Amino acid sequence: MSTESKPPTFRAAQVTEAGGPFSVVERELVEPGPGHVRLTVEACGVCRSDEGFVDATFPGVSFPLVTGHEIAGRIDALGDGVEDWAVGDRVAVGWFGGHCGTCLACREGDFIHCARLQVPGWAYPGGYAEAVVVPASALARIPEGLTAVEAAPMGCAGVTTFNALRRSPAGPGDLVAVLGLGGLGHLGVQFAAKLGFETVSVARGAAKEEAAKNFGAHHYIDSTAGDVAAQLQALGGAKVVLATAASSSAMSATIDGLRHNGELVVIGATPEPIQVSPLQLIGASRSVHGHPSGTARDVEETLHFAALTGVRAMIETRPLDEVGAAYDRMMSGDARYRMVLTTGK
Amino acid sequence: MSTESKPPTFRAAQVTEAGGPFSVVERELVEPGPGHVRLTVEACGVCRSDEGFVDATFPGVSFPLVTGHEIAGRIDALGDGVEDWAVGDRVAVGWFGGHCGTCLACREGDFIHCARLQVPGWAYPGGYAEAVVVPASALARIPEGLTAVEAAPMGCAGVTTFNALRRSPAGPGDLVAVLGLGGLGHLGVQFAAKLGFETVSVARGAAKEEAAKNFGAHHYIDSTAGDVAAQLQALGGAKVVLATAASSSAMSATIDGLRHNGELVVIGATPEPIQVSPLQLIGASRSVHGHPSGTARDVEETLHFAALTGVRAMIETRPLDEVGAAYDRMMSGDARYRMVLTTGK
Amino acid sequence: MSTESKPPTFRAAQVTEAGGPFSVVERELVEPGPGHVRLTVEACGVCRSDEGFVDATFPGVSFPLVTGHEIAGRIDALGDGVEDWAVGDRVAVGWFGGHCGTCLACREGDFIHCARLQVPGWAYPGGYAEAVVVPASALARIPEGLTAVEAAPMGCAGVTTFNALRRSPAGPGDLVAVLGLGGLGHLGVQFAAKLGFETVSVARGAAKEEAAKNFGAHHYIDSTAGDVAAQLQALGGAKVVLATAASSSAMSATIDGLRHNGELVVIGATPEPIQVSPLQLIGASRSVHGHPSGTARDVEETLHFAALTGVRAMIETRPLDEVGAAYDRMMSGDARYRMVLTTGK
Amino acid sequence: MSTESKPPTFRAAQVTEAGGPFSVVERELVEPGPGHVRLTVEACGVCRSDEGFVDATFPGVSFPLVTGHEIAGRIDALGDGVEDWAVGDRVAVGWFGGHCGTCLACREGDFIHCARLQVPGWAYPGGYAEAVVVPASALARIPEGLTAVEAAPMGCAGVTTFNALRRSPAGPGDLVAVLGLGGLGHLGVQFAAKLGFETVSVARGAAKEEAAKNFGAHHYIDSTAGDVAAQLQALGGAKVVLATAASSSAMSATIDGLRHNGELVVIGATPEPIQVSPLQLIGASRSVHGHPSGTARDVEETLHFAALTGVRAMIETRPLDEVGAAYDRMMSGDARYRMVLTTGK
Repeated sequence: MSTESKPPTFRAAQVTEAGGPFSVVERELVEPGPGHVRLTVEACGVCRSDEGFVDATFPGVSFPLVTGHEIAGRIDALGDGVEDWAVGDRVAVGWFGGHCGTCLACREGDFIHCARLQVPGWAYPGGYAEAVVVPASALARIPEGLTAVEAAPMGCAGVTTFNALRRSPAGPGDLVAVLGLGGLGHLGVQFAAKLGFETVSVARGAAKEEAAKNFGAHHYIDSTAGDVAAQLQALGGAKVVLATAASSSAMSATIDGLRHNGELVVIGATPEPIQVSPLQLIGASRSVHGHPSGTARDVEETLHFAALTGVRAMIETRPLDEVGAAYDRMMSGDARYRMVLTTGK
Repeated sequence: MSTESKPPTFRAAQVTEAGGPFSVVERELVEPGPGHVRLTVEACGVCRSDEGFVDATFPGVSFPLVTGHEIAGRIDALGDGVEDWAVGDRVAVGWFGGHCGTCLACREGDFIHCARLQVPGWAYPGGYAEAVVVPASALARIPEGLTAVEAAPMGCAGVTTFNALRRSPAGPGDLVAVLGLGGLGHLGVQFAAKLGFETVSVARGAAKEEAAKNFGAHHYIDSTAGDVAAQLQALGGAKVVLATAASSSAMSATIDGLRHNGELVVIGATPEPIQVSPLQLIGASRSVHGHPSGTARDVEETLHFAALTGVRAMIETRPLDEVGAAYDRMMSGDARYRMVLTTGK
Repeated sequence: MSTESKPPTFRAAQVTEAGGPFSVVERELVEPGPGHVRLTVEACGVCRSDEGFVDATFPGVSFPLVTGHEIAGRIDALGDGVEDWAVGDRVAVGWFGGHCGTCLACREGDFIHCARLQVPGWAYPGGYAEAVVVPASALARIPEGLTAVEAAPMGCAGVTTFNALRRSPAGPGDLVAVLGLGGLGHLGVQFAAKLGFETVSVARGAAKEEAAKNFGAHHYIDSTAGDVAAQLQALGGAKVVLATAASSSAMSATIDGLRHNGELVVIGATPEPIQVSPLQLIGASRSVHGHPSGTARDVEETLHFAALTGVRAMIETRPLDEVGAAYDRMMSGDARYRMVLTTGK
Repeated sequence: MSTESKPPTFRAAQVTEAGGPFSVVERELVEPGPGHVRLTVEACGVCRSDEGFVDATFPGVSFPLVTGHEIAGRIDALGDGVEDWAVGDRVAVGWFGGHCGTCLACREGDFIHCARLQVPGWAYPGGYAEAVVVPASALARIPEGLTAVEAAPMGCAGVTTFNALRRSPAGPGDLVAVLGLGGLGHLGVQFAAKLGFETVSVARGAAKEEAAKNFGAHHYIDSTAGDVAAQLQALGGAKVVLATAASSSAMSATIDGLRHNGELVVIGATPEPIQVSPLQLIGASRSVHGHPSGTARDVEETLHFAALTGVRAMIETRPLDEVGAAYDRMMSGDARYRMVLTTGK
């Protein structure tokens, strides 16, 4: 595969020590090895979890670091042995950045639990850049009708919320509550509504009700204004609560709001323990379930569903040069609701 | 339905105030009302949960009280409108003592979550007696090959463990741990082995290993001798942990021993909270799930499976007259492993 | 429950011998017996399957006959022992007209397979009338936002298509084909689209494409213009084909259009055999599955989903007096797409 | 990886033209390529489907041909990039001889439906030999407690029956019928019994009853002695019929013997169509489902379950030199019940 016409360098936003700051540097382009492809990055989302890499609170982070795992772009070079993909294909790469294929989970076809799961920006340089090299197993096709900017956040925030909801025990028409209305939650509400659920948005303060309704929520609960569980029970009890907010106490407070056979689905990551008594669980057959992200194929299905139904992250874009400001805004919680870096490529 | 030849009274073991003691008294036989049947009780199990009634720690208990919800006997009279049952049928009645048929859960066909669930010894006089009157919806047919004494504990201890295991995500060959080796646990181990699981018994002390293996366990973990989770992971990680012991701290200690997609199934009732962090659940897609008992049909299927595969509670029997001693022995934890009262009927 | 102010008679459209014609007669109102309620009928759909009753091709039909099993109205009298319902409640009664509660299927909570399933117009006088008496177990609550006319066809055509789709193996975004675009099919297409499926309408002739797209279909296949299976495969292969058209040869022709793990879901009733070879099924793990209607609770969930998402049958209404014309139009296949009789009550 | 001590040739039984005969020849050993391993074959089962290769009735067969896809042996050389396997590991390779990893099904983790599925003896030289080279993705670990001879037939006959049963809708205690009592059926009966099903063997003639009971069947139906469906209904109706016999008319004859929600699971491959009417399927929610074989991990789970529960194929062994006689005996249907070639290695 000839790539002679490519410039030999690309620009990437890196941090050289824990905590930053970011600097945009030139790096040398490399050819993708066997089973890998190189992408021209068009857009890359800034995710709250990027903080774990930049601040090195996640294990095994080394510097200089190029983070970024909500990547959208197009293939510009193929390594040996890559089948079913071509130069020019529009693709996304999210949190799921490749699997080993040989561990127990992979042999079960359960790639998201791969013992050697690769995450862009952790296992290899990520997407705050004009180019990345990724394993072909990380690729998700972007359908017509979605721009790169729209596709980018679907690789992590999108697939996580969509997967968690579609694989939950909730069926069409069931009452589903989404706890939190931030980067994950505003997508959770939209997906829940488009999946045919009777959708409840639960967030802090009365001011968010209008936004929640605009995203498709049928009901809004202000969690600062009373007992969330009781309000959920007044609506009939939730079949599923999707906990996007990383607050274990807020999660615990919803459990009594689940109807029989109801499930609290946890995607907001925090080490603080949820408290749940056997008596809360047994009589009503309730569950608390953790849900990770999704595979490349899951990302592809998320993109397809978004294209089909009109679900879109609400996005603020910044050029790659403004990476520091974009990152700070995302981490401050002020972004409405996702930040996406654009490369102009 | 003529019952003229029946004596007009029957003997029952009752307590007249919270905490007992039991006294065996004569009560007047009544005719079953519409939709009800009267049973001649042949055997009735003593269950740890009877303590909640006798001591009135459960809500709504009134005295004098005849407790007992592991009933086996035969139908001796039919009320109006009872179809599909006949005098002489051998039947069991467990914790599930009838459902209303009209609440939301009942209309969903999910009777165990009936909003007006009736429990023998709570909603109506129970089975520490020579006769009981129960709703026809509470009846489970006893198959040939099971005696009344064998059938009795299947109505609560049996159905709870069998149902929890068969409806768990574990499949044949999967590693399944049973936490506790008492009245519930010794049945859990047997059912797990006969369901084709690779079965781990987890209990306190080395002395129980032999019994666990005799019940069919392939592995034994002494929970006092080290980290239970680590020992489960050394066996590959449990797909399911069935928590029969009512200790939330013991339950919490098993969660890291679950493999990906593993589930902690809680049947041991206690108000003390389980502690589980989102980080323990999310990456490996783990769950904590509460499981109640089972319906009359579930009891019937439990009895059928027990008859088919040879699962039997290990039982000590006592005549109804010795109810006090039997009850004390069960509550002390010394019984090996269930106590059953017999009436000689 | 006093009903003194009710007139002692009501009008009903009956046939006195197989094949009709209909005559509208006065009948004496009766009080509902235990466990039953009486409804004032506001609307009743005409269903293609009514022909089996009117022509007595179904077994056990006796004359004079009042058919009609897509009933919507309000409760005007309660029999003894009816809980959870009140006079004035707005309710629908569909094909599922009550279950026995005591057969094996009922004890399993699987009421649709009740061995003594009652169908209005078969087990008791049906809904082509101003009043009906039905078992309380047949009732489905009509939500605000749906009129009686809108609710009526959901009790049979609606619940059958909605249930078949939501319980199929198809998930959101999956390719789902609906075979036929008549009384069932036009609802199937709408439900499929609102369930988030990528929806294909398959019908005879190019003329129906516009209607199909208006009902929400993303694709249209003219089954007279080429190989349906090949066209489905060109779209990626269907995860589910919902066969609403009662043509076994048309059904058989879709099987090779299923993707791996795909399922042909059959709701179009005909005795003509489907032809399917093991080789068509084995390699791709395909299935052919029959789906009946739904329970009262299923009807309720159908009504709720319709209210939530805007799915509505396209309906022509006629007053009860014009029952003969309405019936003929429905049976001719000219109705667009359901006929509903109205009583003015 | 040094393999210097290996002799440069190995013996293989090949046919040089369609229909045979077999000749045992010397072939040159090759080093495994990237992602591949070489096995010393200890045992290889003869499968009825080998006839499709030997007679070239399957597409794409070329000669000279070494067939055989029920392989058991040990790894003697590793190609580049093979992780998680070591020289000396005891492994089986069945019908599933490797997947591409990049087609849609593979990206879904559904390897058995791989668009480029490799079958030993079809995609590459098979196991009627002292050595084979296979993709690492084809390998299943053999547990202690199973010999190579015991393991061999589990790679095709074993995994097919075990997988079909464990993934069927049948639960423990349910009535499950196995149609046919040959190479597949005698394993199906054993697996069904060990999975806790109430097991019915259905075969031709009274003479097979004793064998069926010895394999664990609780009931036997002589299909030549009356209506199979009626006899199944007399037992309560089958939840699952596993059709191992490749006779579509025999399959069709069982459908009315299914209970509600029952499923005919088809593994016996034949092009002759099953005949099934919508009316047989709809009312009782019945299904007809095709089931293929299983992945390498499925084979591993089959071997594990067999080791755990004592399921074993009944086997006649022959040395590789007697391949022609062994093959003829298997194809004649006289083998009781599987033939396995041994290499003495």
